[in-house]
Amino acid sequence: MKILPWMIEISDCGADSREFRESIFSLGNGYMGTRGFRPEEPGAHSAWRSTFISGFFEYIRPGITDMVNQPDFSAAEIRIAGRPVTELPLSDFRQRLYMDCGLAEWEYTAQAEGAAVRIKVEKFLSMSERHTAAMRFTLTPVNSAVDCSVAVGLDGAVRNLPIADNQLQENTEFARIWGEVRTEPLEGGGMLRARTHVSGRATAMCFSAQGRGHERSSRELDGEYVGSRFEARLEPGRRLTVEKLVSVACFRDGPEPERLACEALKRAAARGFEGLLEDTQLAWSELWQDMDIELTGSAEWQGALRYNIFQLIQSTPEGDGRASIGARGLTHGRYKGCYFWDTEIFMLPMFSCMRPAAARSLLEYRYHTLDDAVKSAAGFSAKGARYSWMSADTGFEQCETWDTGCCEIHITADIAYAIGSYFEQTGDEAFLRDCGCEILIQTARYWTDRFNYCPAEDRYHLLFVKGPDEYCGVTSDDFYSVRMAAHNLRLAARAVGFLQERFPEKLAELGLKLGLGADEPGKWLELAGKTCERFDEERGLWLQDATFEYLEPLDIAAHKTGNLPLYRSISFDRLQRYKVLKQPAVLMYMALRPGEFSQDELRAAWDYYEPRTLHDSTLSYGIHALLAARLGLGDAAVSYFEKSLFLDLRDVMSSTGREGIHAASLGATWQAVVFGFCGLTLRDGVPACEPRLPPHIGSVRFHVRARGRRYRIELSHFGSVITEICEL
Amino acid sequence: MKILPWMIEISDCGADSREFRESIFSLGNGYMGTRGFRPEEPGAHSAWRSTFISGFFEYIRPGITDMVNQPDFSAAEIRIAGRPVTELPLSDFRQRLYMDCGLAEWEYTAQAEGAAVRIKVEKFLSMSERHTAAMRFTLTPVNSAVDCSVAVGLDGAVRNLPIADNQLQENTEFARIWGEVRTEPLEGGGMLRARTHVSGRATAMCFSAQGRGHERSSRELDGEYVGSRFEARLEPGRRLTVEKLVSVACFRDGPEPERLACEALKRAAARGFEGLLEDTQLAWSELWQDMDIELTGSAEWQGALRYNIFQLIQSTPEGDGRASIGARGLTHGRYKGCYFWDTEIFMLPMFSCMRPAAARSLLEYRYHTLDDAVKSAAGFSAKGARYSWMSADTGFEQCETWDTGCCEIHITADIAYAIGSYFEQTGDEAFLRDCGCEILIQTARYWTDRFNYCPAEDRYHLLFVKGPDEYCGVTSDDFYSVRMAAHNLRLAARAVGFLQERFPEKLAELGLKLGLGADEPGKWLELAGKTCERFDEERGLWLQDATFEYLEPLDIAAHKTGNLPLYRSISFDRLQRYKVLKQPAVLMYMALRPGEFSQDELRAAWDYYEPRTLHDSTLSYGIHALLAARLGLGDAAVSYFEKSLFLDLRDVMSSTGREGIHAASLGATWQAVVFGFCGLTLRDGVPACEPRLPPHIGSVRFHVRARGRRYRIELSHFGSVITEICEL
Repeated sequence: MKILPWMIEISDCGADSREFRESIFSLGNGYMGTRGFRPEEPGAHSAWRSTFISGFFEYIRPGITDMVNQPDFSAAEIRIAGRPVTELPLSDFRQRLYMDCGLAEWEYTAQAEGAAVRIKVEKFLSMSERHTAAMRFTLTPVNSAVDCSVAVGLDGAVRNLPIADNQLQENTEFARIWGEVRTEPLEGGGMLRARTHVSGRATAMCFSAQGRGHERSSRELDGEYVGSRFEARLEPGRRLTVEKLVSVACFRDGPEPERLACEALKRAAARGFEGLLEDTQLAWSELWQDMDIELTGSAEWQGALRYNIFQLIQSTPEGDGRASIGARGLTHGRYKGCYFWDTEIFMLPMFSCMRPAAARSLLEYRYHTLDDAVKSAAGFSAKGARYSWMSADTGFEQCETWDTGCCEIHITADIAYAIGSYFEQTGDEAFLRDCGCEILIQTARYWTDRFNYCPAEDRYHLLFVKGPDEYCGVTSDDFYSVRMAAHNLRLAARAVGFLQERFPEKLAELGLKLGLGADEPGKWLELAGKTCERFDEERGLWLQDATFEYLEPLDIAAHKTGNLPLYRSISFDRLQRYKVLKQPAVLMYMALRPGEFSQDELRAAWDYYEPRTLHDSTLSYGIHALLAARLGLGDAAVSYFEKSLFLDLRDVMSSTGREGIHAASLGATWQAVVFGFCGLTLRDGVPACEPRLPPHIGSVRFHVRARGRRYRIELSHFGSVITEICEL
Repeated sequence: MKILPWMIEISDCGADSREFRESIFSLGNGYMGTRGFRPEEPGAHSAWRSTFISGFFEYIRPGITDMVNQPDFSAAEIRIAGRPVTELPLSDFRQRLYMDCGLAEWEYTAQAEGAAVRIKVEKFLSMSERHTAAMRFTLTPVNSAVDCSVAVGLDGAVRNLPIADNQLQENTEFARIWGEVRTEPLEGGGMLRARTHVSGRATAMCFSAQGRGHERSSRELDGEYVGSRFEARLEPGRRLTVEKLVSVACFRDGPEPERLACEALKRAAARGFEGLLEDTQLAWSELWQDMDIELTGSAEWQGALRYNIFQLIQSTPEGDGRASIGARGLTHGRYKGCYFWDTEIFMLPMFSCMRPAAARSLLEYRYHTLDDAVKSAAGFSAKGARYSWMSADTGFEQCETWDTGCCEIHITADIAYAIGSYFEQTGDEAFLRDCGCEILIQTARYWTDRFNYCPAEDRYHLLFVKGPDEYCGVTSDDFYSVRMAAHNLRLAARAVGFLQERFPEKLAELGLKLGLGADEPGKWLELAGKTCERFDEERGLWLQDATFEYLEPLDIAAHKTGNLPLYRSISFDRLQRYKVLKQPAVLMYMALRPGEFSQDELRAAWDYYEPRTLHDSTLSYGIHALLAARLGLGDAAVSYFEKSLFLDLRDVMSSTGREGIHAASLGATWQAVVFGFCGLTLRDGVPACEPRLPPHIGSVRFHVRARGRRYRIELSHFGSVITEICEL
């Protein structure tokens, strides 16, 4: 694999790397995404040729949804001398992803009956017309005349492969999500309409296909498939080109998805493949103006960093407050497409700093599901709002493993934390007033019911809880959860103060709506001040929880080889009793709120927990890189950073093919660069930097926004220059 | 409901009580069981007309089985004037269960077109020919001539209603277990052969029907149904009688279930309904000679106590070491028919004392599944054997809720305890040598891997564990689990000593098979001596676990009304943080091993835990009755005893209809009488009694066996008489 500043290239087309390539070359435009399979290569299972629409879920069991695999709008077939290219020997294979414009491109030579044909396939999802995708197939015989054909169409015979939450369970069951699927030819193309079986959720897709250099064209209609075929006997040097434009709309877009799809196709047809690509390039260049990070020193680091940002942008439903970013974005159905704390803690900071509108719409999703969180809390016999560990189009729990879904409750505080950080960065008072304060108040109320008061100690305990270190069992007083909950409680009290000062009429309204007691903020602060965190004075060490110190030491080197997670060789029941961490816990909190700790405390925690951390979660490397950079541990910072930076590109966890792109790691990589190496902070609302650049980096340039202003940040090993940019 | 010494009678036939009656009148003979539905009354769902074969399970998901609802051999239809009796008004309804012979009998008058017909239906499962069941239908017009018909047959159109482990989840999904079902008429009856869909497990059923007083008879064959119909126009006083004999065999009985069923039917036909009933009565009388408890003072208590014993006998697969007793016996599919600690801790003592052969075959089931328990331990990265919380025809975990299946690990020690107690009672050295010792050794090994050593304290902690009080969350050092595990470890060390002394060649063989280290018994004893139980010196109180004292007090009276479990109104997440118990935990251990505690400790534990116990498990009442009797708390003993004694008969938990007969409670009732009121213990292998009879009881008479001898026990308020009985 070549990683260039704006391009990723692979020359291997072996079957072994197929799933990996399909993940790496995933395309998305926030509205929809497709895995990076070659359109003309049929999948062994239609479930693995996945096409997703952001926020489009459907029930597969009572209460449990899956992200829906949409009808396959990439469907295509290329034949040389009557044989599908997938059966022919290929040579000179080259697959490229252009990150400046979101274009994926495949080029190869196929041989049949002595004839060699050079084939080029291009595909992109439009960033300017988000309901639109485009493909182009170009066939050029190299040495002798040969019969060629290209068929393109829409294929509704797709299935879902719902994946169990349990990481060790094999995926064997397919779900047929779609009920009625209807196809019909249209002038120059075709249309597909489908409705899901359970809820009747509609998708409509149109395509038009235009050939050049063909002798015959025909329509194909077969059950759930509609397509067009172009055929010619081509002389060497002559060319057959087929352009396919696709439009997609669904029930989420309004009551008439068919009309929307037809209109989108008309607009797309008016621009054509080249015109659409130009528009997309322009849209991407605007995104990159906000979100690019230029760095000198290593072209590979530069390209990989852009890849991290690129994939995060592709999966982000900016402007759609009813969806968020799945743990694998729109690149795979793993975790049923659900949204986790990954969004708020790992991905959101990039958007808050560089693209506040996108950050806001991600947080609006949590406001959109606040009512569900209130109902969820009631289901747990608690007041206030309790966010689910995994949520989808509703806020109701999608996690089906008990210890995680019931006990990993810190996500509620994580969302509150994210609101606080977003506001700190952006100063977006309107969001805080209209959405944020209500979330903060309702989540604080949940915590008052979730802690247990111990009169003997005059302290509140957090019992039966699981922290972010998922190798620890269900325990008490998990440091991360307790501190985050306390922060949530304090944020809520400040939110009430903020409304009182700035928007008293809004406070009056909320007070009525929520039946807010005058004494509640005082109670939140009292609880926040009397939680139980354990500090070992002798070692100057913050302890992870009530049980960690009782766990058995493990000789990690003897058990863990490579980066393969230990949960694949040791059962969870045993792992929870070893003194090892899957991912940072105390250190995670310290990464988020370093100001609460002395340098000695940070260092003591690093020295104790880091050697015991297995990094068996992809959420681990980037955060360790960030902390190592802050602690001035240059070598460790680089070593962790490279694992995060290349996590998917180098398939560090051996799961990128099988599971898709790890979205949280993309965001953690960004944080390691910006918060770690560049040391970006806000001082009185103005960006400041404390550069700790590794030797691999010469200089860094990027833009951030803070409190409505825009700044250019330029750093080198000798300091930083921060310039405010006037925007009109 | 009338509860007479040998008979239960109900005169109500309302729809509301239908499920309840169907549970109460359940019939079984150890080989098979049917719910007590009226044969001629069709169910709304065939899944509720359940017929089970002990140990007959089939997969409904990968790794998860359900107890299979067999083809319905009770199928019948009665028509009066052309209309099914189920559509007619009924009067003078009377339903009886005769416990001396296992006969269920329904009598009622049905009215149609001015004609009244007296109908009597009798049904029993043969106790002497366990593959056989018999039914008799008798119709007698009372006032005028009328057309009558009786159809009887075998119906393969049955479904399973697999019930989620989660007690709050509604049962909505049906599973069709059966693949191919074939029916064919035979001379005078018919045959049904069915194979399960997944594993091809076969069942074969034959029936023969004989009418008296009919004018016409005909065969009926319709898909999965085969039957015979008898019709007549009956004058008042004339009678139509149809006798139906059924035989059942399945893959568990050998390779040719069809042949077995045919042969069983031939034998049954030779005896006829009356002959079979005589044989069954004789077989029951032999069982009652072993297991009856006669008491004077209350006919209702006498009848109810017999009912408890009767239902336990009916569900027990005596002589079949590949099956055990499900939590609801053979009376309902709840908990997928699985076997729990309920068998060893609650039910086994009755058999150990009164019917050692049955006790032995129940324990043999655990030996039969020992290999699976070893594989399960390996799956949890532990050595030795780990028994599953719920098991079926294999020993692999059937529990699908994480906190219970993964954390409620005391069952492994419970099985070891049961082996120890069985041997103590029976002196069965052959069992200990051939099965028991290997189980004890392998389970002890599991514990050495499950405890965590804390060097600072030189103690072993049991982390992330759930005790028998299922309202407590996942915690550490649960008293019951720790003490039972220590007992298991000590029993294993004693087992090695036993073999060394009595069967050194068997020890040599086991040592080779298991790779037993010479130092292992020493390690077991060391661990057993260094576990962590918490004793509060000030209160003289054994504490439940590491978290119980941090829980929030609950005003039980304000929350709990009646006997309905609190988990129906408060979520588990909240309940686990209240200082309440679902069922005894510390007290449970004290009930099993009272000799380890001073009277003060027993009393302190009672005074602390009993008022905080919600009895939301049916395992609770009988054990509290037993303890109260031991503590001399007469009123409490009677009050708890009545709840246990009448648990199903009076539907104390409002779940008998929906869930079936609570088998553990049957056994706990027996223990409350024999160990509680009668104070039976063994002294140097000889029974001794310390009667603490409540005023409701005048005297008690029963037989027990100990160390191969048989004793008659007679008690009154003035002492006990124990007589050894010579057996030839």
